[in-house]
Amino acid sequence: MTLTPLLRSVLLVILLGMGASAIAEDGYRLWLRYDLMQDAAKRKEYSSLIKYFVVEKTSPTLEVAEKELSLALAGLLGLKTSSTKDVQESGAIVLGTSDTSPLIKSLNLQEKLKTLGDEGFYIVSTTIKGKKCIVITANKEVGVLYGAFHFIRLLQTQHSAQNLSLQHAPQVKHRILNHWDNLDRTVERGYAGFSLWDWHKLPDYIDPRYFDYARANASVGINGSVLTNVNSNAQILTEPYLRKVAAMANVFRPYGIKVYLTARFSAPVEIGGLTTADPTDAAVREWWKKKIDEIYTHVPDFGGFVVKANSEGQPGPQNYKRTHADGANMLADALAPHNGIVMWRAFVYDNAVPEDRAKQAYNEFKPLDGKFKSNVMVQVKNGPIDFQPREPFHPLFGAMPQTPINMEFQLTQEYLGQATNLVYLAPLFKECLDSDTYAKGKGSYVYKVIDGSLENHPLTGMAGVANIGNDRNWCGHPFAQSNWFSFGRLAWDPTLSSESIADEWIRMTYSNQQDVVSTLKQVMLASREITVRYMTPLGLHHIMGWDHHYGPGPWIKDKPRADWTSAYYHKADEAGIGFDRTKRGSDALGQYAPEIQQKYGSLENCPEEYLLWFHHVSWDRKMKSGRTLWDELCHLYYQGADSVKWMEKSWNALEGKVDADRFAQVKSLLAIQYKEAVWWRNSCVLYFQTFSKKEIPAGLEMPDRTLSYYESLQFPFAPGIRPKW
Amino acid sequence: MTLTPLLRSVLLVILLGMGASAIAEDGYRLWLRYDLMQDAAKRKEYSSLIKYFVVEKTSPTLEVAEKELSLALAGLLGLKTSSTKDVQESGAIVLGTSDTSPLIKSLNLQEKLKTLGDEGFYIVSTTIKGKKCIVITANKEVGVLYGAFHFIRLLQTQHSAQNLSLQHAPQVKHRILNHWDNLDRTVERGYAGFSLWDWHKLPDYIDPRYFDYARANASVGINGSVLTNVNSNAQILTEPYLRKVAAMANVFRPYGIKVYLTARFSAPVEIGGLTTADPTDAAVREWWKKKIDEIYTHVPDFGGFVVKANSEGQPGPQNYKRTHADGANMLADALAPHNGIVMWRAFVYDNAVPEDRAKQAYNEFKPLDGKFKSNVMVQVKNGPIDFQPREPFHPLFGAMPQTPINMEFQLTQEYLGQATNLVYLAPLFKECLDSDTYAKGKGSYVYKVIDGSLENHPLTGMAGVANIGNDRNWCGHPFAQSNWFSFGRLAWDPTLSSESIADEWIRMTYSNQQDVVSTLKQVMLASREITVRYMTPLGLHHIMGWDHHYGPGPWIKDKPRADWTSAYYHKADEAGIGFDRTKRGSDALGQYAPEIQQKYGSLENCPEEYLLWFHHVSWDRKMKSGRTLWDELCHLYYQGADSVKWMEKSWNALEGKVDADRFAQVKSLLAIQYKEAVWWRNSCVLYFQTFSKKEIPAGLEMPDRTLSYYESLQFPFAPGIRPKW
Repeated sequence: MTLTPLLRSVLLVILLGMGASAIAEDGYRLWLRYDLMQDAAKRKEYSSLIKYFVVEKTSPTLEVAEKELSLALAGLLGLKTSSTKDVQESGAIVLGTSDTSPLIKSLNLQEKLKTLGDEGFYIVSTTIKGKKCIVITANKEVGVLYGAFHFIRLLQTQHSAQNLSLQHAPQVKHRILNHWDNLDRTVERGYAGFSLWDWHKLPDYIDPRYFDYARANASVGINGSVLTNVNSNAQILTEPYLRKVAAMANVFRPYGIKVYLTARFSAPVEIGGLTTADPTDAAVREWWKKKIDEIYTHVPDFGGFVVKANSEGQPGPQNYKRTHADGANMLADALAPHNGIVMWRAFVYDNAVPEDRAKQAYNEFKPLDGKFKSNVMVQVKNGPIDFQPREPFHPLFGAMPQTPINMEFQLTQEYLGQATNLVYLAPLFKECLDSDTYAKGKGSYVYKVIDGSLENHPLTGMAGVANIGNDRNWCGHPFAQSNWFSFGRLAWDPTLSSESIADEWIRMTYSNQQDVVSTLKQVMLASREITVRYMTPLGLHHIMGWDHHYGPGPWIKDKPRADWTSAYYHKADEAGIGFDRTKRGSDALGQYAPEIQQKYGSLENCPEEYLLWFHHVSWDRKMKSGRTLWDELCHLYYQGADSVKWMEKSWNALEGKVDADRFAQVKSLLAIQYKEAVWWRNSCVLYFQTFSKKEIPAGLEMPDRTLSYYESLQFPFAPGIRPKW
Repeated sequence: MTLTPLLRSVLLVILLGMGASAIAEDGYRLWLRYDLMQDAAKRKEYSSLIKYFVVEKTSPTLEVAEKELSLALAGLLGLKTSSTKDVQESGAIVLGTSDTSPLIKSLNLQEKLKTLGDEGFYIVSTTIKGKKCIVITANKEVGVLYGAFHFIRLLQTQHSAQNLSLQHAPQVKHRILNHWDNLDRTVERGYAGFSLWDWHKLPDYIDPRYFDYARANASVGINGSVLTNVNSNAQILTEPYLRKVAAMANVFRPYGIKVYLTARFSAPVEIGGLTTADPTDAAVREWWKKKIDEIYTHVPDFGGFVVKANSEGQPGPQNYKRTHADGANMLADALAPHNGIVMWRAFVYDNAVPEDRAKQAYNEFKPLDGKFKSNVMVQVKNGPIDFQPREPFHPLFGAMPQTPINMEFQLTQEYLGQATNLVYLAPLFKECLDSDTYAKGKGSYVYKVIDGSLENHPLTGMAGVANIGNDRNWCGHPFAQSNWFSFGRLAWDPTLSSESIADEWIRMTYSNQQDVVSTLKQVMLASREITVRYMTPLGLHHIMGWDHHYGPGPWIKDKPRADWTSAYYHKADEAGIGFDRTKRGSDALGQYAPEIQQKYGSLENCPEEYLLWFHHVSWDRKMKSGRTLWDELCHLYYQGADSVKWMEKSWNALEGKVDADRFAQVKSLLAIQYKEAVWWRNSCVLYFQTFSKKEIPAGLEMPDRTLSYYESLQFPFAPGIRPKW
């Protein structure tokens, strides 16, 4: 249909108006929102450069790339694009590789492409047959797809599309979401409803949402998905379930996403009918070999296994007096012929071992360095305890030079306010990635361990424990989407800044309006530090509610496992508070490089945000602020809660500048966050006061509830608790 | 904005086109779809009659009525309506009651309204101040809301809006959904995801979906919602949960929906700290009185309780040697001052009692007739076993003349293919409602028991076990929405026909195109009988899979409870098959009126669809078709499965006539239904063949799998299983 300019402008006005009213802003679209750009000049600029596609030879991956671009351009610019096989007039977007596109081949881009690997891409403004065009190309088709999403992001964030010459390639090879999803659709530590995977209806019914999941992942470069919980169930390895897994792999394949599973170490006994799962037993090895061969008949590009073994009750090689390396290598041998990999988790600790939990993973794994097969990565959480609001980096980073180490971050906010707190996690991720391990001298940053550059490992990876469920907006809290986004962006390039990622996400998800962008960026960038303050300031950790981990629980003690209590970690007494991890204490600090030992080892030098992580400190110690430790602790708790009020105010000032639906949603969630911050503050201050025996400093509002009130609160149906199998 | 006719027509073309492309047809809107009418003449006709609203004095309920109408008219007709306080020109829709609207009061409609009660409505085309208008009025505001939804339905189904004079009032007072939703968000027998109720985030976070749930219910006249599972947890009665319940009641109130809860009989012990829950104990009675008073401080219009007691392990008055009446009356006494009611379920049976399960509810409750307080209803399932694909009506209907009996239908398809089978249940509901109990002679239909007319009971009710979960389309299967819709329509008026309800639903949900309407109506109306054939033909019942009830399980026997096995019900042996419920057998038939005993008591007269329900029949018996029973059984199983192929073909012929998204979804679900029908057919035929020792009749395709294959199938994570607390 050809429209006169008048008709077109009327239509635009109407379409712009409709965006706000006709479609419920339920957050389903994530950051892939393709509403008509409000800025007419920008729209005109882009429309003058982009008129049609050229895709000479298509394929499933090129097809989804082209489809995404058409969707984006139709939405953002109101363009009805068509696809052709040749460049005829200016304004073409030419998509393809040298293999699929003679036009691109004729440009002789080998030089530009040679450093980009299998997944990098090159976007360039050029001329073909004398016509101006934009070429999105790569060595492999998945690179073209990533290029297409990058190009869409340029438009969504209103970057110039003129004179483009952009090369990007991922710094980390395996960029993987770990879903702690159970086969009954509960999600361990899931706060966004239940599992997306409708196992019961698979393989015959394919939920359309699987496609949108794949789109979102591909848009940020995530190329792997571990479908099942690390606390694994062997049923997933049975034939009926492998058929279901294959159906999902078929959906994900065009998007460059490989499927992985968790392997329950005792599967040979539980579903194989064997009497042992000893990794040195020939029948066991044969069972795994056959099972893995079977998996590859269903999923020819199956990625491999994540394994949680001999950890929190999970079976493992130590049940048979074998090492983690024995276990991992058995699986690795069977996966190797298919190019599959093993990600063997280092998250191990044992209540029966009379050793600081923070030290145990290092103690167990460090001696195994060099003993793993080349297709094994050891998957290490960012910190030595468990995804706390703040932890120092894990001492295994830099400590196993002969072993590829992959990072495990937690996107689901198990310890950071679950689905009701706005906490932008990129600063937490960056804090770890940018930490210097000093493993090979100054500058041996954690991210260089992860991207393989420190020890020249070709096998690299970053895992994010997914925060995705079947809530309509995927992540429960609208801002939790930013943590999925950030994880993908940082796995692609760990050197990106938290700020630049927030900037992209806000523009794509909410608005390009300057005041919206700057307000939300301030709120997001401050949010994690604020949360640390009202939950665990000064290096406190693991003082949350029992089992469900919802809300504060500094009083938790006398449980079957000491290392699951709070008292174990804060060690508050009348003299002071904190876990002495120096030589005088557990010497967990001794697992780090000497430079770090020096910095953190003395009360004087230790940065205050880690003070109580490494030291037991007197209530009266004078802090940098001039306050005593007790007063400082109180002030930080109060500051944290007060800052949530500031977050609320900042958000509420955006009324009318973001859509009404999400505005109301976030507004009520921030009100809940404030309640919860006060709950944390009051609980912790009142509880620690029983040791310090000191007054809450003057000027701070007194808690209006008693400690015993807070201790009495029960949440028998809090979400995300591991079911008891 | 004023548009020229040209602009307007261009815009319409574009909007019509967008309907299909821009908005994902995920089924979220249910039957409340307000897309622009494709029929321009109809649009014009309606637009000439409807131009604006007049609401003189508003209120929460009138506000939602007006909002719904604006939404509908904006969508269906592209009208931007505005609300005024007076009639100025023709084309007004005047909303209100005599109390809120002097204009309506001036019309003197008392005569018309006096028979309409608190919830009925009157829609009339009339003239006010010389201007043509349409008045939607009622005695109470909720009637106006129902009238508004009725008016919208008229437009959606393209009925004339000229010369209206419509009076409708509900025939049943309490039209209630029973949610078998647990506090951890699992749903017992739920096949549409998990519970809508996000208890954890309540009361501070109100999911926008609660409003859409309320709209959908109000649109079909449902006026109550039991939020919790009949297998109840006493926690719901604690203060933190009552605050959550109150938040939901606040959302539902403007829509005329009262909130009800399930009462766990042992709550006084579990959360009250008492040592007994004996209903004659003074402390227990006092505890319930205080608890109920407390509930009403949170929810001033709380509806009351549903109770499952002394049934399937639930506690109840019999634990203390008291009767069901003792238990119900205790609660009724405490609820009475607040106008609350008790719905006491008659679903009781005991494995320890050596009596046909089908007889036990009657045996227990019949003697209690006359013993219940006036605010108690006894809630009776449609049939004497448990929501089977076909059962005769429950013998308690008509058997307790002094007691209000409310109907319990099951919308969730526990025994009818769960979320993968298209089964329109209205014919099942109607079969029961239209059954003649002969309680007071011929014409004593079940629906007259339910609407109270048979015995002049003012307290009446119909309960539907909800099929609603957090799946985006609410009910899992797109056609399962029709069962929610039908339940509401039949609870309002049990005399409506299955066909007229299907007609409405199809037009509102899919299309007014004649071929779509007629094809879907045929498929829907046939679907339940087809399902009976491939699952339980000839009166077979309760032969489904163990525990999860998914798929066939005629071989289930030797379980801890005989009355949970299949062998108990089909009683197949070498001589024949079927449960003899005549005088020679359990004499369950003796619980019905003599006229029914006569009809069903002899092999000759018994309708074949109930044959094996009431008789144990020789494999060789000659059936009406001329075939032997064995051959007939096989033929019906094969016919059932073949008919699913016909359903598939019928649906697939609608490609392009219904939107692509839902087309693809239903297409793949019908393919699953065919697989499952063949699975049922093969399993049952092969299993019963082990008794009949006869060949599958010539011409029928032989099963390609063995009986032991079918017996070996395991579904450890099938949805909807009751969690073990």
